[in-house]
Amino acid sequence: MEQGQRSGSRPAEPGPCLSSPCGADQAASVSLLSAAGAEPGSRTLAVAAVLPAGGCGERMGVPTPKQFCPVLERPLISYTLQAMERACWIKDIIVVVTGENMEAMENIIKKYKHKRISLVEAGVTRHRSIFNGLKALADNQPNSRLSKPEVVIIHDAVRPFFEEDILLKVVTAAKEHGAAGAVRPLVSTVISPSADGCLDHSLERARHRASEMPQAFLFDVIYEAYQQCSDYDLEFGTECLQLALKYCHIKAKLVEGSPDLWKVTYKRDLYAAESIIKERLSQEICIVMDTKENKEHIGHLLEEVLKTELNHIHVRSQSLYNAGSDIQHINLEQCYNFICVNVKEPDFQETQKLMSMLEESNFSILYSIVVVSDEQKLQESLRQGAIIIAALIKERNSALIGQLLVA
Amino acid sequence: MEQGQRSGSRPAEPGPCLSSPCGADQAASVSLLSAAGAEPGSRTLAVAAVLPAGGCGERMGVPTPKQFCPVLERPLISYTLQAMERACWIKDIIVVVTGENMEAMENIIKKYKHKRISLVEAGVTRHRSIFNGLKALADNQPNSRLSKPEVVIIHDAVRPFFEEDILLKVVTAAKEHGAAGAVRPLVSTVISPSADGCLDHSLERARHRASEMPQAFLFDVIYEAYQQCSDYDLEFGTECLQLALKYCHIKAKLVEGSPDLWKVTYKRDLYAAESIIKERLSQEICIVMDTKENKEHIGHLLEEVLKTELNHIHVRSQSLYNAGSDIQHINLEQCYNFICVNVKEPDFQETQKLMSMLEESNFSILYSIVVVSDEQKLQESLRQGAIIIAALIKERNSALIGQLLVA
Repeated sequence: MEQGQRSGSRPAEPGPCLSSPCGADQAASVSLLSAAGAEPGSRTLAVAAVLPAGGCGERMGVPTPKQFCPVLERPLISYTLQAMERACWIKDIIVVVTGENMEAMENIIKKYKHKRISLVEAGVTRHRSIFNGLKALADNQPNSRLSKPEVVIIHDAVRPFFEEDILLKVVTAAKEHGAAGAVRPLVSTVISPSADGCLDHSLERARHRASEMPQAFLFDVIYEAYQQCSDYDLEFGTECLQLALKYCHIKAKLVEGSPDLWKVTYKRDLYAAESIIKERLSQEICIVMDTKENKEHIGHLLEEVLKTELNHIHVRSQSLYNAGSDIQHINLEQCYNFICVNVKEPDFQETQKLMSMLEESNFSILYSIVVVSDEQKLQESLRQGAIIIAALIKERNSALIGQLLVA
Repeated sequence: MEQGQRSGSRPAEPGPCLSSPCGADQAASVSLLSAAGAEPGSRTLAVAAVLPAGGCGERMGVPTPKQFCPVLERPLISYTLQAMERACWIKDIIVVVTGENMEAMENIIKKYKHKRISLVEAGVTRHRSIFNGLKALADNQPNSRLSKPEVVIIHDAVRPFFEEDILLKVVTAAKEHGAAGAVRPLVSTVISPSADGCLDHSLERARHRASEMPQAFLFDVIYEAYQQCSDYDLEFGTECLQLALKYCHIKAKLVEGSPDLWKVTYKRDLYAAESIIKERLSQEICIVMDTKENKEHIGHLLEEVLKTELNHIHVRSQSLYNAGSDIQHINLEQCYNFICVNVKEPDFQETQKLMSMLEESNFSILYSIVVVSDEQKLQESLRQGAIIIAALIKERNSALIGQLLVA
């Protein structure tokens, strides 16, 4: 068994769309917004997003700011943008980065084909960066293609795992209440220390929440709050919801979020992020074989064994000769893993064909391809072979690319 | 290249000691305790630990309670006990488990050779479980081999990555102040919701701390607190430090801890734990070769390449013919990875010898062994070979055991 050769230009990383791309979801999203309180009828709510990404990530213990740390060779922020882009109803996404990271960010946008992104230069604190992002969206900005949205989402660049659902919830709640934010139960009890470093009092855990992201605001509310905001708040504040409360008397609606809203903060969070992405990418396996008619074809047998042995993994087979028209369809359904079982042509012509088709598609980044060339060997220990294949796909270890594995 | 066969009885898991075992550290620990405020002179401070492990882990989203979830095939709680055991000056370790998990816990203790452990049955809440643990340590317990300690540590079964240093710090502070606990900066801003689910106010992040574990108490203080404790506190309380404050007027000393005190709470935390353990286990590689005299031996060349290519990994070589007396020494210094380079005997007799020696040692669980049998091939692409070897050791993927890899 051999894992297909992958050149340096095709890293082991997800392509532009991990989930179903815009199109099918759009209508549903807008109508959900309408149903849940946004204006009814045909007018679409104008929504933009601001992602502060100017932090230096000092808690990570690595020199690279955490939003630019690679996860499976792809910068963390690119996953966050990808998740944000899935919500087609967000018109503009403002990413706020420091001047020194501006060029790196432009390259990320180009490389991973991010759309609807505008870059704005960061301030020295988080609140100043968000304010800069909001200014870019405000009316009357010279030479700007951006227009003022009705609702603005604020989200961290280092929270890549949210679902579109939570965006819809906070936007809908912000439209109704003026401000809204995702919250989670506290993991640890929160305590207040006295000046001498001893316990002053502890807070009742059940009566408090961790304020997470995304948050959303009526644009006029949060922009007004930032314009009124004191220098002290701009320097030391941590909570946008608090600014809306303090300066505009808006009590934000709190929306219970799922555990996947968590913020990548420490090195262990990068490990967790990598494992989650690996798991997501491994969920669907497509077996490509040179014929589909023969029911006894080793590809069909392998499909059966993989289905039985591996829980939660969707396996299906595909005849390569028919794949030309279907290859985009495969991608659209989030398949990043191909097992080529070559019975007729052990010289890898079939595999080359698949790779070319993937490269020609709009989904430019190629994922794991496992090539099975020795039908006889696989036949002999199908279960063992299936486990090895699953391990290769799951681990996505670049060191094992091009290796001949003999079970 | 081939990864050594490993039978089912030798799982890919760390042995009884990840770090240096007790002995050398003991004197240092006790004298540090003395210097830092414990009683001077020769008398040793009597310290015990209570680990509540009766939780059901509902936040994990898996049916197994999180403390029993396998990480590299070994239950999480076993790593925590291992870390606790490194502090030789802790006399007794009380693990509090539910009746239904009692037998499973006994098996874990036996399998991983845990020492100084006593099991106590859990109550229905965390505080009731801790109270049960303390009762077992209190005086006058019939048929108990346990004796009342001066200081008791309370630690979570699901925080496996603490260092001995933080135990010493909280014990020392508890001896002086009556109570002490590790704290960490807040990751998210904490907010207080109003009854209608809106923001009431947000807490200033810099003026609050997350209360973590370990904590330590003068035994008489915390035992008194639990005896006085209301049913409401036993049912709904979350914070031991608060009980000491409320019932004994002891203001606990707060000790700033490191990021590795974090609690395994969600599934992503298990992923992070696995990656951290893999990384720790991969830090030291021992190349075992059939001769050490020949400076041109492929093993020496491999050692050089591994040292250059892999940062933070300690590589050294060892002649197998001399290894008999040294094998325990290797283990004591935390080596879990062996690369056997067989030049003279390609029939794996050498490897078998190493495996037998490891099995006969007290460190009964065998780790990754990579067998290099084709000197010629390795010679040809030494760098590529080194990268593959490092990947095999790092991933510890059981599916790749027994595979022939051809670079």
